[in-house]
Amino acid sequence: MNFNVIGESVNRSDAIAKVTGKARYSEDYSESDMLVGKVLRSQYAHAIIKNIDVSKAKALDGVKAVITHKDLSKIKFATAGHPWSLDPSHRDVEDRLILTDKARFVGDAIAAVVAEDELIAQKALELIKVEYDVLPAVFNAKESIQPGAPIIHEEKPDNIISSFGANIGDIDEEIKNADYIFTGEYETSAVQHCHMENQSAYAYKDSSDRIVIVTSTQIPHIVRRIVAQALGLPWGKVRVIKPYIGGGFGNKQDVTIEPLTAAMSLAVNGEPVRLTLTREEVFVDTRTRHAMLFNIKTAVSKDGYLKGIYMSNLVNNGAYASHGHSIAMSAASKFRPLYNFSAIKVEPKTIYTNLPVAGAMRGYGIPQICFALESHLDDIAKSLNIDPIEFRENNFINIGHTDKLSNLVVRSFGLKECVKKGKELINWNEKKEKYKNQSSDKRRGLGMACFSYFSGTHPVALELAGARIVMNQDGSCQLQVGATEIGQGSDTVFSQMAAEIIGIPFDMIHIVSMQDTDITPYDSGAYASRQTFVTGAAVKKAATEVRNKVLKIASKKTGLSADELDIINGDIIEKRLNGFICTIEDISMEAFYNRIDAEPITSDVSENVRMNAIAYGVTFAEVEVDIITGKIEVLEIYNVHDSGTIINPKLAEGQVQGGVSMALGYALSEKMIFDNKTGKLLNNNLLDYKLQTILDTPNIGVAFVETYDPGASFGQKSLGENPAISPAPAIRNAVLDATGVAFNKLPMNPQAVYEKFKEEGLI
Amino acid sequence: MNFNVIGESVNRSDAIAKVTGKARYSEDYSESDMLVGKVLRSQYAHAIIKNIDVSKAKALDGVKAVITHKDLSKIKFATAGHPWSLDPSHRDVEDRLILTDKARFVGDAIAAVVAEDELIAQKALELIKVEYDVLPAVFNAKESIQPGAPIIHEEKPDNIISSFGANIGDIDEEIKNADYIFTGEYETSAVQHCHMENQSAYAYKDSSDRIVIVTSTQIPHIVRRIVAQALGLPWGKVRVIKPYIGGGFGNKQDVTIEPLTAAMSLAVNGEPVRLTLTREEVFVDTRTRHAMLFNIKTAVSKDGYLKGIYMSNLVNNGAYASHGHSIAMSAASKFRPLYNFSAIKVEPKTIYTNLPVAGAMRGYGIPQICFALESHLDDIAKSLNIDPIEFRENNFINIGHTDKLSNLVVRSFGLKECVKKGKELINWNEKKEKYKNQSSDKRRGLGMACFSYFSGTHPVALELAGARIVMNQDGSCQLQVGATEIGQGSDTVFSQMAAEIIGIPFDMIHIVSMQDTDITPYDSGAYASRQTFVTGAAVKKAATEVRNKVLKIASKKTGLSADELDIINGDIIEKRLNGFICTIEDISMEAFYNRIDAEPITSDVSENVRMNAIAYGVTFAEVEVDIITGKIEVLEIYNVHDSGTIINPKLAEGQVQGGVSMALGYALSEKMIFDNKTGKLLNNNLLDYKLQTILDTPNIGVAFVETYDPGASFGQKSLGENPAISPAPAIRNAVLDATGVAFNKLPMNPQAVYEKFKEEGLI
Repeated sequence: MNFNVIGESVNRSDAIAKVTGKARYSEDYSESDMLVGKVLRSQYAHAIIKNIDVSKAKALDGVKAVITHKDLSKIKFATAGHPWSLDPSHRDVEDRLILTDKARFVGDAIAAVVAEDELIAQKALELIKVEYDVLPAVFNAKESIQPGAPIIHEEKPDNIISSFGANIGDIDEEIKNADYIFTGEYETSAVQHCHMENQSAYAYKDSSDRIVIVTSTQIPHIVRRIVAQALGLPWGKVRVIKPYIGGGFGNKQDVTIEPLTAAMSLAVNGEPVRLTLTREEVFVDTRTRHAMLFNIKTAVSKDGYLKGIYMSNLVNNGAYASHGHSIAMSAASKFRPLYNFSAIKVEPKTIYTNLPVAGAMRGYGIPQICFALESHLDDIAKSLNIDPIEFRENNFINIGHTDKLSNLVVRSFGLKECVKKGKELINWNEKKEKYKNQSSDKRRGLGMACFSYFSGTHPVALELAGARIVMNQDGSCQLQVGATEIGQGSDTVFSQMAAEIIGIPFDMIHIVSMQDTDITPYDSGAYASRQTFVTGAAVKKAATEVRNKVLKIASKKTGLSADELDIINGDIIEKRLNGFICTIEDISMEAFYNRIDAEPITSDVSENVRMNAIAYGVTFAEVEVDIITGKIEVLEIYNVHDSGTIINPKLAEGQVQGGVSMALGYALSEKMIFDNKTGKLLNNNLLDYKLQTILDTPNIGVAFVETYDPGASFGQKSLGENPAISPAPAIRNAVLDATGVAFNKLPMNPQAVYEKFKEEGLI
Repeated sequence: MNFNVIGESVNRSDAIAKVTGKARYSEDYSESDMLVGKVLRSQYAHAIIKNIDVSKAKALDGVKAVITHKDLSKIKFATAGHPWSLDPSHRDVEDRLILTDKARFVGDAIAAVVAEDELIAQKALELIKVEYDVLPAVFNAKESIQPGAPIIHEEKPDNIISSFGANIGDIDEEIKNADYIFTGEYETSAVQHCHMENQSAYAYKDSSDRIVIVTSTQIPHIVRRIVAQALGLPWGKVRVIKPYIGGGFGNKQDVTIEPLTAAMSLAVNGEPVRLTLTREEVFVDTRTRHAMLFNIKTAVSKDGYLKGIYMSNLVNNGAYASHGHSIAMSAASKFRPLYNFSAIKVEPKTIYTNLPVAGAMRGYGIPQICFALESHLDDIAKSLNIDPIEFRENNFINIGHTDKLSNLVVRSFGLKECVKKGKELINWNEKKEKYKNQSSDKRRGLGMACFSYFSGTHPVALELAGARIVMNQDGSCQLQVGATEIGQGSDTVFSQMAAEIIGIPFDMIHIVSMQDTDITPYDSGAYASRQTFVTGAAVKKAATEVRNKVLKIASKKTGLSADELDIINGDIIEKRLNGFICTIEDISMEAFYNRIDAEPITSDVSENVRMNAIAYGVTFAEVEVDIITGKIEVLEIYNVHDSGTIINPKLAEGQVQGGVSMALGYALSEKMIFDNKTGKLLNNNLLDYKLQTILDTPNIGVAFVETYDPGASFGQKSLGENPAISPAPAIRNAVLDATGVAFNKLPMNPQAVYEKFKEEGLI
C-alpha cells in the first residue's frame, strides 16, 4: 500500500506536552483545598467484620465523613473493564461491595474517611475501631479447591470462579495414538503493573445532581457504567473525565477507586473529594497479574509433528473475581492460531484465594500460557534432539488457518519471516556452533519463543468504537475518539490515520486527548491491544466521511466528479493531470460561509468491528548464566513482530522496547511475595519489589515484518501487549541451552536459579 | 400546537449552579499564579504617538513583557461579532490594531504590560513614557462631518463609516402630495451595557503551539476567527472556550480584549496571561450604545393614514467602526414591518468621532429609532387630535405584509391583540378619563409605544447553527450547542426543545453549557435575538434525528412501523391503543450493546436558517411627573409581546423584566457624559453613572399574545432584545400626556426635565 502519513515516524502528538510538563493528569486538575479521602484496610486475610466504631474518628476536628459498608447500598457489582452485555450469562461476576462487610485479603477496604487534609484523614483512620472475627484463610490455588477449604464467597462454595476453557478435536484419541507423550509442569508468579502514576481520582456532584469523576483510567465509558451500577444510579447520572494518564498496563482497565471516590463525595453532599492511592495501596488493592500453574501433556508424532495438547491451568485469582473468568479463557484462545494441533484441550480453573485481586495485565493471560507452551516445546525439541526453531517451523499454521472454536481466519501470517529475521539478528547459527561445548562458570546460550495474539476481543465481546471529526475553516481538523491515550501513542496514530484519509498534513489534525463521557464518542477503551485495529476502523470511517464531504463541495465548485479529484497534502487536485484546483481551506470556507448551503464539515460515527486480526511475533535471546551466583544476564534480545502495517515505526519500536523491558522483569526478578501464614504482601514497594532498572536492561533490538491484513482498515494488527509475551520463555530457553537446566517457574531470579542449580548438581 | 415540555415553566438548567455559586466564570478558571496583563491608555482623545519608552517598565522586577504597536503586526482587523462573509464588500470595517499607533479616544490602548501581579503591572504602566503629538479632536457627529473636521482614520477622510439606509416607494412624491407634513427631531444618548461581569479572559499557548483563550464572550467561534485574523494565524490555530458568563447585552458580541490577551501571552512564550478589565476600563474601552440624532418628516393623509416617512439619522460611532456600519442599517430595517407606509426613506450616516466606540447593545439601533418614531407618532396624533392607539391601529400592517426590500413576509401578527391586552392591563380608558384635567404639581399620564423586531439576521447575514446530541444508555441525552447561554436562559429552552422532540422528560437532557470551538458545533453565537429561532431549528433537527433512530430500533424490535409508534415521557408507545412497549432506556441499551448492529444514538447537525420571523410588542406606561423637581415616576408599566410560541413562560417573563428595567434606565437616567473639551468620560463608574436600582424600578407587568409563526421550528419568534425597545417612547409619551411637554431627547433625567419645564414655562 502507498501511504503518505501512515508509516511515517511523526513525533508523538503529546511529546511536547509531556516533556515540558504541560500535560495535566488527574491530580493536576484537582485543587489544593479539596477534601481528601483515605481508606482503612483489613489487617487480616479473612475475617468477618463484627463491628466498626467510627465515633472517635467522626469526632476528630477536620473530619467530614466516615463511611463503612453500613452507610452504603448492598449492591454487588463487577469491576472488570469489559463492555456491558445484554446477555446476563455473559457478564462479569458481581462479587464486590464498595466497602466490604467481610475482609477477604490483607488490604481489603473496610472504611473510608473524608477529611480536610491527608494528615487528619490518616489520624482518623487510626481512631476507627474494628472488631474482627478472624477466619482461616487460603492463599494457594491448589489448596483453595480442596474440600474443606475456607469459603471465600458464599455464592461460590467451591471457590471456583470459572472453568471455561477450550476443546478442539479429540485430545484423548490423539494421546492414545501418539508416538510420543511429553508432560511438564510450568508455573508463573503474581506480579504488579507498576505504572508510574498511581490510581488517582476526584469526584463531585455537579449542580444537576450528577456525579462527575475525574480519574486516571483506560476505560472512561466503562467507569461511568460501573460507578452508576455500584451506586444504583441511572448511568446518565454519572460523568467520567479522563485526562492524561501515567500508564495503566491493564490495571486501569479495572474499576478500582472510582466507586469509592464517588461514595465519599456523596457522603459530604457532593463536595469534591480526592482519593490518590499510595504505592503500597496500589500493590495490595488494585490488581495483579495472575499466578498460573500449568500441567501439560502433548502428543507428538515420531517425525516431530505436534498432534494434540492438553493443558490444565490453576489460576490464582485472589479475593474477588475482577477479570478472572475471562483471562484464563483468553489464555486458552489466543495461543491457538500458532501451531497445527489436531486436538487442543485447555481446562483452566480460576480460583478465589485470600490474596490481592488478580486482573488484567498486558498480555491478559498469554505471557503465562506462552511461558508454559514455549518452554514445553523446547523441552520436547531437546528430547527429540530437533532444532527448536525447525521444530516450531514444521508445526506452524499458515494463511487460511481457521480456528475451529472462534472461526477466526488467519488472513496474514508473517511469523516465518519474523523467525528468519530474528535468527539473523542474533546470529543464531554461528553462536549455536560457538557455544556447543562450555564448561566455565559463565555459560552462554540462545533461546527463542513465538506467540500469537489477537487484535481486540471479537468474537468474545462487542468491539464498538466511535470517532468524531470537526473541520476548521483553515481545513485543519479536531479529532475526538473515545479510545484512550495511555502512553502507547494511540492519539498520534489516530491522527496519522485521519490525516492519511482526508489528505492533509499530520499537523493539521488536532487530537482532543481528554475523554469526557458526556461528549466523547463511545468507545470501550484501551485494552486487548484493540485500539489501532478497532478504533482505527472508526477513525477511517469518520475521515472518509469528511473526505467525501470535501470532495462533494470541490466537485460542485469544479463540475468534475469526485472520482476525478484527489486531496493531497491539503490541496484539491485534478487527478489526471495532477492539476492544483484550490486548497482544502478554500473548500472549508465554502462549507462554513456559503450563504445558500453552508454546512460545516463534520462527522460523528460509530463502528462495530466484527473482525479480528491475528498478530505474531518471536523473541530471540542470548544469555550468560553465572553458575556460581545464579545471575542471568541477557546479552542480546530481539523482538520481531508481524503486526501488519506499522502506522508509526518510531512509536512501534518504543512500544516493543517497553513491552520487552516489562517482560525482562517478569522473567528474571519480579514477584509478589506473600507471607505464608498471614497472606500479607511482604514487598509492597518499589524498593523491595524488584523491577528491572535501566542498568539491568540490555539493548533491546526491535524489528518488524510488515504484512498487510486485509481485514484491517490499514492492514494493521495489534502491537500493544504483544512485546511482553514471548521474552520470558525465550530467556528460559536460552538458559536451558546454556546450562541444560529447565526452569519451569518464574521468575528466574538469582535465588531461584542458585537453588535449582544446587538441586541439579551444577554447584 | 400541543406540546409536552415546551410551554412549561421548568426551572433554568443553571439555576442551582448559579444560586450555589458553583457556576464557574472565566476568572474562576484562571489560576492564582497566572501572569497578569494591564493596559496603558491614552489620556488624549486624538494624538499621534511619537515615541514610547518602555525601558524602565521592562526593567522593573516582576515585569515579564511590555508591548506596544511596534512589537505587533500591522494587520488591521474588524471587531464586530458577525459571521464572516465570502463577499469582501459585505465584511466589517477593518480599522483596528491590537495596540494603536495613534490614539483616537481617551482610553485607547497604546501599550500593555505582563507582570507577576497586578500591583507590579500597575507600577510598570506608570514607568512607560509616551510622547504624544496632540491633534484636534471632535466629539459631536454633526461637527465631525463638517469640512475641515479632524480626520480620524486616513482611510475615511470624511469621517463617514457608512451611509447605507433604506428607500422604498417614492418619498418625494408622498411628501409632495401629502395632506399634512409633520417634522420632528429626536435624539438619544450613549449608554453602557453594565453587565455584571466585566470583560475577562486568559490566554496561553498549548503544547501544539495553538493559542487557547478562555473568555467571557457571546460569540466564541467569532472570537476564534478574529483573534486569528488579528494575529495573522490560520484560524484552526486558535481555540476559544466560553464558560458561564455574567451578562453581555451585545457588548460581548464584539471582540474587545481577546486579541490583546493572546498577544500578551505570545509575548511571554505562551505562558498563561490573564486580562480582566476594571469597570472604569469597561466604560471607556469596550462598546456603548450609539447616540443617534433623527430628523423625521412624515406625510399623513387627512383621514389619519401614514403615507410616507423620511428619516435622517446621524449616528455617533466613536473612534472605531465595530458594528457601526450595520446598526444604522438594522435600525432602518427592523421598524419597517409595523406601519403601512407607502414610502420609507432612511438616510443614516455613521460617523467617526473621538469618543469611545459604539457597538452592539440590546436592540441594535431599534431602541433609538423606536424612540424617534413612536415619539413622533404621538406628536402627530396629538396634532391631529386622534387617540394615539387608534392612530397606530389604523396604520398597522397585517399578516401577509411583505417588506419590499428584504422580501420578508409577516406570517404571524399578534400586535393588535397585544395592544388590546396592554390597554386592559393598564386600564387605559378609565385612567385617560380620570387624568383629563390636572393642574397640581404632580401630574399623571399614560403613554404607549409599539415595535417590531426580527428573529436573527436573515437575509442580511448567514444564519448557521449547530447542535449535537449524544444519548446515554439510560436514554438521557447530552445536548451541545454552539449557541451561548449568556444569562437569557437559552440552555434551558434548547433542552426543552430537545426533550419535546425526543419525547423524554426535561431533566433527561443534560446541556453542555460550556462552548469550546474545538468540539462545539459551529454557531455564530448570542446576538440579534436569534438563538431560540435559529439555533432552535438546529436543535429540532438534531432531536428529530435522535428520535428517528430510537423509533427505528423500536420498529425493528416490534415489527411495527415507526409511524405506529410514539415516544412519550421516555416510554415507547404503540400509538393506536396507547400501549406501553418498552422504555427508551431499553432502546438505547440495544443501540449500545447489540452484538450485531450496535451503534450508539447520536446526531451532529448544522442548519442554515434562511428564514426570519417578525416579533411584535407594545409598552404601556403610566407616569407621575413632579413638575417642581423634574422627577418622573413610572407608576405602572406593562410590556405585551407577540413572540410566537413561548417556550418557557417563566424565563420569558424574566427576560421581559430585565429588558424593561434596562429601558427604564435608558429612558430616565442613563447617559455617558463626556467632557466637552477633552472627550474624557466623566462618569466612568457605577456611582456616577446612573443605573436604575431595584428601588427605582416599579413592578413590571408582563404579558404575551402567543401566535404561532409557521416559519419557526416551534412557532417561536425573538424575545431577547425586544423588551428593551419600546419602554422609553412609551414613558416619553406618558410624560407628554401628563404635562403636554414633548421630550425629544433621552434620558429624561430630573435635570433635563427641569430645564425643559423651565423652557416651556411650566415652572
